[in-house]
Amino acid sequence: MKPINVGLCGVGTVGGGTITVLKRNAIEITRRAGRPIVITMAANRDLIRARELCGDDITLTSDAMDVVNNPEIDIVVELIGGTTIAKDLVLAAIANGKHVVTANKKLIAEHGNEIFTRATEKGVMVSFEAAVAGGIPIIKALREGLTANKIEWVAGIINGTSNFILTEMRDKGLAFNDVLKEAQRLGYAEADPTFDIEGHDAAHKLTIMSAIAFGIPVQFDKAYLEGISKLAAIDIQYAQELGYRIKLLGMTRRREQGIELRVAPTLIPARRLIANVDGVMNAILVKGDAVGATMYYGPGAGAEPTASSVIADLVDITRLHTADPEQRVPHLAFQPSQIADLPILPIDEIETCYYLRINTEDKPGVLADITRLLADNDISVDAMLQRPIAGEARADIIIITHLAVEKRVNTAIKGIEALPSITGAVVRLRLEHLNG
Amino acid sequence: MKPINVGLCGVGTVGGGTITVLKRNAIEITRRAGRPIVITMAANRDLIRARELCGDDITLTSDAMDVVNNPEIDIVVELIGGTTIAKDLVLAAIANGKHVVTANKKLIAEHGNEIFTRATEKGVMVSFEAAVAGGIPIIKALREGLTANKIEWVAGIINGTSNFILTEMRDKGLAFNDVLKEAQRLGYAEADPTFDIEGHDAAHKLTIMSAIAFGIPVQFDKAYLEGISKLAAIDIQYAQELGYRIKLLGMTRRREQGIELRVAPTLIPARRLIANVDGVMNAILVKGDAVGATMYYGPGAGAEPTASSVIADLVDITRLHTADPEQRVPHLAFQPSQIADLPILPIDEIETCYYLRINTEDKPGVLADITRLLADNDISVDAMLQRPIAGEARADIIIITHLAVEKRVNTAIKGIEALPSITGAVVRLRLEHLNG
Repeated sequence: MKPINVGLCGVGTVGGGTITVLKRNAIEITRRAGRPIVITMAANRDLIRARELCGDDITLTSDAMDVVNNPEIDIVVELIGGTTIAKDLVLAAIANGKHVVTANKKLIAEHGNEIFTRATEKGVMVSFEAAVAGGIPIIKALREGLTANKIEWVAGIINGTSNFILTEMRDKGLAFNDVLKEAQRLGYAEADPTFDIEGHDAAHKLTIMSAIAFGIPVQFDKAYLEGISKLAAIDIQYAQELGYRIKLLGMTRRREQGIELRVAPTLIPARRLIANVDGVMNAILVKGDAVGATMYYGPGAGAEPTASSVIADLVDITRLHTADPEQRVPHLAFQPSQIADLPILPIDEIETCYYLRINTEDKPGVLADITRLLADNDISVDAMLQRPIAGEARADIIIITHLAVEKRVNTAIKGIEALPSITGAVVRLRLEHLNG
Repeated sequence: MKPINVGLCGVGTVGGGTITVLKRNAIEITRRAGRPIVITMAANRDLIRARELCGDDITLTSDAMDVVNNPEIDIVVELIGGTTIAKDLVLAAIANGKHVVTANKKLIAEHGNEIFTRATEKGVMVSFEAAVAGGIPIIKALREGLTANKIEWVAGIINGTSNFILTEMRDKGLAFNDVLKEAQRLGYAEADPTFDIEGHDAAHKLTIMSAIAFGIPVQFDKAYLEGISKLAAIDIQYAQELGYRIKLLGMTRRREQGIELRVAPTLIPARRLIANVDGVMNAILVKGDAVGATMYYGPGAGAEPTASSVIADLVDITRLHTADPEQRVPHLAFQPSQIADLPILPIDEIETCYYLRINTEDKPGVLADITRLLADNDISVDAMLQRPIAGEARADIIIITHLAVEKRVNTAIKGIEALPSITGAVVRLRLEHLNG
């Protein structure tokens, strides 16, 4: 059967992995897809580097638009990243009636609505499994595997760098900055790690999963982000004493009034399987009303794991592009006409459990004042721990709350911070029980 | 758009769950599928029971062939079980040009090759996500999500009853028979539990996954089965001391000479995530050459979890039945013409690690005799533990081996059992490191 001709835009780490795996497993992939899938053209700014990775069989160009405008190309793979050139070329590929595969989470999370609208108009497929959680087929699971369910929430450890740092902080009792340096030395963190440690990367992925889970547009601008750079080692230790682990968790939950969408360091019970996902690994826990909780675990980054998802999308398109476009798997899991206008809730309105650490003088009446302020704001206490601070007449009081509304927790915290025996800011972290 | 009409054969636990979920989530499912998916006809021997579950909108019959022969029905759902009536009606549905969804692992594992051949001839889809691991979309992951990979092995905890029993034996230090009674009382084990505890159920599921992972025919008759009913509490305890847990593990591995395919109680390192899958939950760990290890976790049984997979298949067919049947996702992941003739290796030929427990007189020279017999059979020792038996001049010697060929291990064991200081049979369990 006639091969599927693929044009590759961007020959970097993932592009190189895609070339390698497509070649190494060509027989296996053709046995599955029914047709050979062959990269015939590639674009890269650095042509010398590209030639090393592409070998002699692939036509090279330094202009990605050459790929997009090549009438022989059936599918364009966008691995350039960013939202400028990448967006232009994806839209141009669609306009030319080509199917698109991309690993670009930022592009999909920020411009997915526009891209999918154009793709639907032209009847082409835009696939992006590699944009979320690297090699884990989580997009497929959410979009196709769990279609029977009303999804209640999706919780994910979806940034390997942050998870590596948190794992090391816990295992070795080290401070954030020391572990960050180690992660940079090992190549698990970039020289400028902001994008990973402040939650941007995770929020891009979570935004995409939220849209697919609930049938809403992608709305990255409404996601709430809180990173791990201010997390203190002592809170990881107290959490552990109380039976919890702290993870940078992406959490999106359906509530009656709208959708919660946030990335933040979060306590989760240590006995949950997902709490034991350590190092650079990723995992996503999905709660559906029919199936209950299912979890998907694997490598969230890396050349070949990401290539695994890129190629799965190529095989998918090869298998399914002949299906009626009106019926075929919709880009965001729900038919375009059925995307709902549910609002993303402001962070003030979310409802979850909280961990509070309060540094106080160790004297009578303080606890009564604190618990009174909590009660006044409808916050009830689930667990409490008091720890003296060595050599001082002070103590840390740690409180785990039941479900509470965030703005009330903030009000209570303001009240607590104004108490005369309290020093400094109250540490507030969110806590998710993730009950199956 | 015109609804997809579904005919349901068998209105039991899963059938009831399917009716309930399709009704409860009708809006959500239609938003995803683009068309309403409606059960219009159902067959059940007990019509009174069926009427209770089906309500008044569904035409009932006591003859499943009425459903299969109804020209209004687009998709037949087979939930009768077994391989007699179920097989006839599935083949008749295919002959009538209808798509089929089934949760029947025995039918697919034992007669899948014939069924898929007929389905391919008629250009219809036969989907069976619910046949393996209940609500976990593992078939989709293997068949579509990991298509870039040469799969190296698949390991699964895929029988909830056995996993519940093993979890309780470990947590409470109880004997198999005591826990079995408890499991029966709680409804986690059948009155006749043979099918679950002796590995048949797991082997059906593993056979299907093996075929899809490696592109071979389903060959249940060549699967090796070993159950948990003879497992002693003491071996669970020794395993724990050595850093392992014992699970009823389905393991299928590609080797140069063929495919290993077995279900048996197996030691796995306690630090692996899959070792911590407890109670009735299921998990499947897949090793691909590009992606590395990915894991899929969730409920392996139950009315609504299984219905979740049945309905996902219905949505899939609704979305994809218009695709070119020559190109569409193949039933066994590989194109029918590309199914390979790799043999299933006899159990004697497998290569894995082993746990041996040897009950011996506590006197000089025994260990030298044992290790000599192992060395003579090319078996090297990874770890050893010796435990005195209270009140006796005897000891248990526990040996963990490196990779070894099973027939050589058996030869060594025969030699060990013939030693004068050894009493009774040597306990031999397999061990898998499951390295990602």
